[in-house]
Amino acid sequence: MSVVYGRVALIGLGLIASSMFWGIRRGTLAGEVTGYARSAETRETARQIGLCDEVCDTLADAVRDADLVVLCVPVGVMGAVAEQIAPHLKPGAVVSDVGSVKRQVIEAVGPHIPEGVHFIPTHPIAGTEHSGPTSGFAELFDNRWCLIVPPPGADEAEVARMEQFWRALGSMTDRMEPDHHDLVLAVTSHAPHLIAYTMVGVADDLRRVTDSEVIKYSAAGFRDFTRIAASDPTMWRDVFLSNKEATLEVLGRFTEELFALQRAIRQGDGEHLHAYFTRTRAIRRGIIEAGQDTNEPNFGRGKA
Amino acid sequence: MSVVYGRVALIGLGLIASSMFWGIRRGTLAGEVTGYARSAETRETARQIGLCDEVCDTLADAVRDADLVVLCVPVGVMGAVAEQIAPHLKPGAVVSDVGSVKRQVIEAVGPHIPEGVHFIPTHPIAGTEHSGPTSGFAELFDNRWCLIVPPPGADEAEVARMEQFWRALGSMTDRMEPDHHDLVLAVTSHAPHLIAYTMVGVADDLRRVTDSEVIKYSAAGFRDFTRIAASDPTMWRDVFLSNKEATLEVLGRFTEELFALQRAIRQGDGEHLHAYFTRTRAIRRGIIEAGQDTNEPNFGRGKA
Repeated sequence: MSVVYGRVALIGLGLIASSMFWGIRRGTLAGEVTGYARSAETRETARQIGLCDEVCDTLADAVRDADLVVLCVPVGVMGAVAEQIAPHLKPGAVVSDVGSVKRQVIEAVGPHIPEGVHFIPTHPIAGTEHSGPTSGFAELFDNRWCLIVPPPGADEAEVARMEQFWRALGSMTDRMEPDHHDLVLAVTSHAPHLIAYTMVGVADDLRRVTDSEVIKYSAAGFRDFTRIAASDPTMWRDVFLSNKEATLEVLGRFTEELFALQRAIRQGDGEHLHAYFTRTRAIRRGIIEAGQDTNEPNFGRGKA
Repeated sequence: MSVVYGRVALIGLGLIASSMFWGIRRGTLAGEVTGYARSAETRETARQIGLCDEVCDTLADAVRDADLVVLCVPVGVMGAVAEQIAPHLKPGAVVSDVGSVKRQVIEAVGPHIPEGVHFIPTHPIAGTEHSGPTSGFAELFDNRWCLIVPPPGADEAEVARMEQFWRALGSMTDRMEPDHHDLVLAVTSHAPHLIAYTMVGVADDLRRVTDSEVIKYSAAGFRDFTRIAASDPTMWRDVFLSNKEATLEVLGRFTEELFALQRAIRQGDGEHLHAYFTRTRAIRRGIIEAGQDTNEPNFGRGKA
């Protein structure tokens, strides 16, 4: 490995930024990494655990002289942060983001990018249910995909350098157009998260079944939903509000299908159910063959 | 550990029965274990891997002289199997089952139980997405709950012996009334499975997003759903058809809540979303504190 960007600034020190820092350090992918978080507490924690070479108290200090600035904040505040850093960006610098939504982020951030600064949005398809500066680890991106979503007219050399950077962090990369990205992610991420949040909320709210019962007997399937329903509420609020159309489209299809299956249950149509449940096995096989999940029973948890 | 039942017959040699066998062997909980499966291929596999002390070619041979007969077949065929074994049961024997639904199994099996034979239904809240005779392992029930659902008038000494048996298999036990069991499991298992099946089916069926994309980018959340949506289709068809009322009730509540969240997204009601997503974190904390899931990121998978 070797240095891809001389100086990198990570804005927002949560799971993704902290994992990026440890990954950059693992591969020596940058000369120096600065970091900034809005919360003084987060900055203090970052300093204590050695997250970033320097944690700055202002956005201006963090981005000054940076060759790459990565916005790792909730998508709802990307535009405001871009506006604040714009006057301090070095000519020729690259601004990127790791937001889970691309169309709205591009529309919010793009107009603030000064002439002579590159803007290359990305989306690493990786995460955990944990959040905050202590949750990161260098291996988060290994063998995961990172989508690069260059706006029209983006500098090809800089796009290629961004791909090189993410590959050095352990990822595989693909390029994608923003609207298609938002639809694909609505299917593989946004709708599943909303559905998981909903199911967990309903279980918590049923008067005839206690929370204690839900917890004790969760190994029957329910617990699988609780992991993603424990994800950061602010991040996810912003994702849904920023990707309304695609999320609602997928949820509409989901509801339609759920109604069809409910009707099959009510009418006792076992054939319909069996055929449906057989079909869904193939997708899991594909995911395992593609190295995107483990085939160990129960995700390999509880092997102790 | 020591022998709880002299001779145990396991009927249906899938994940639960094979895990019971290895658990019985681990603790020497039975003198001898016989097994039966309808499929000759399954019986042959069982013989090859040493599953059961004796694999029998008929139900009658398997249950003859058994002190405990455990029905480990899909809930839709419990009644038919009970009818077939009834003439061959030893006086004083105990018949049990491990079905995921209790009211309908009790109604289907109960009438076939001869005078002088005990019927003590159970439901071990444990499983994996794998099925068949090779999928079992002794540790499956460790630290999981097993619900004991004795019918009215059940022999207290035999109920206590059943609890002793499941505790010796590694479980904790609770007693529950059949209708409440079916509602609790509709929340913690049946509805989550149907929802997961639905989401995976929809992803597979969207014309504008390819299966390849769904697979590659599944680590964004979707893959969590695919595990339980890879469960045995026959078992799950029968569960839904046997627990219609409670499953449809929980799905009704789920749909109602999902519509409310969809409306919040459409109207841009970030406060509603944030409050909802904050509340659901508590349930996961409870599950982890109760030892029913791991707190390792991503269920600890992909640690390699």
